[in-house]
Amino acid sequence: MLQFVTGNDEKVREVEALLDADVSQFEFDYTEIQSPQLEAIAAHGAREAYREVGEPVIVDDSGLFVDALEGFPGPYSAYVENTVGIERVWRLVEPEADHGAAFRTVVAYCDGTDEDSVRTFEGRVAGEVVAPRGDGGFGYDPIFEHDGRTFAEMDPGEKNAVSHRGRAFEKFAEWYEQP
Amino acid sequence: MLQFVTGNDEKVREVEALLDADVSQFEFDYTEIQSPQLEAIAAHGAREAYREVGEPVIVDDSGLFVDALEGFPGPYSAYVENTVGIERVWRLVEPEADHGAAFRTVVAYCDGTDEDSVRTFEGRVAGEVVAPRGDGGFGYDPIFEHDGRTFAEMDPGEKNAVSHRGRAFEKFAEWYEQP
Repeated sequence: MLQFVTGNDEKVREVEALLDADVSQFEFDYTEIQSPQLEAIAAHGAREAYREVGEPVIVDDSGLFVDALEGFPGPYSAYVENTVGIERVWRLVEPEADHGAAFRTVVAYCDGTDEDSVRTFEGRVAGEVVAPRGDGGFGYDPIFEHDGRTFAEMDPGEKNAVSHRGRAFEKFAEWYEQP
Repeated sequence: MLQFVTGNDEKVREVEALLDADVSQFEFDYTEIQSPQLEAIAAHGAREAYREVGEPVIVDDSGLFVDALEGFPGPYSAYVENTVGIERVWRLVEPEADHGAAFRTVVAYCDGTDEDSVRTFEGRVAGEVVAPRGDGGFGYDPIFEHDGRTFAEMDPGEKNAVSHRGRAFEKFAEWYEQP
């Protein structure tokens, strides 16, 4: 059975809805390495989780990548949210000419111990960093605008329809279910 | 022989000058984990390096911890320097009431595979984040003021006399050489 390494059971249900297969939640505190690349962090975690559970696993990692800041906060988005805070991230971007940014999720799948046992799948949604608006969502949603509204101004269904995480898992599901 | 895990041979000479023992440079690309704690990052690296070389090892990790930003950029100081840049870090701190910050270094020593085979030693220097001044040093030195001057305005000897890294290695040397 496919093991999804996450503490969030809502994510497990989302992925199950995309797949024709059963998905089991595997709560495992894998090592998150430091890297500017989500791919490297998720792949390292998937290898470690595979060694632990001995069954095919998926691990996901996400971040907000601001163009004018060379991708910051990127893989460290949660740490920066908890320290700097999203209001200050907005103030950091405000004076820049380019407010472009992308939310990205990488899903890493691992089913063995060989070098080539890991595959990664990326979902991405482009937008702009703006002054905080909206009460919904979480994390950077209030300062991320896509198609005229921030993610915090969309209801969950609208947001999921365009979301980076949904797209990454759709790509994974497409590959996983190919005959 | 004590193995110092670093790519910087100047650091090796500095530590050798503090110790009565020979120190060997061990170039090894250990895994840096994500953690808000320098101790956890250095300790994890030291365990991994010990498993690789089989001799006592030291690993050091440093960062600038800004009080008003809950310790940011902390363990991610190098990443933030390369993306956000120190000029923008100053702009982030400028509107805050409290400009206090500390440079910190943690040295981790490991000589075995047991849980208690790692010891850590911390050096810290307190100061303030200021607008960039001075041409010396590297990294955050131009925006870190201690005793009226930025680290980039001090000559190397003055800076080393108060530096967090020197203090951490002194503490380590004192413990390492005790009879």
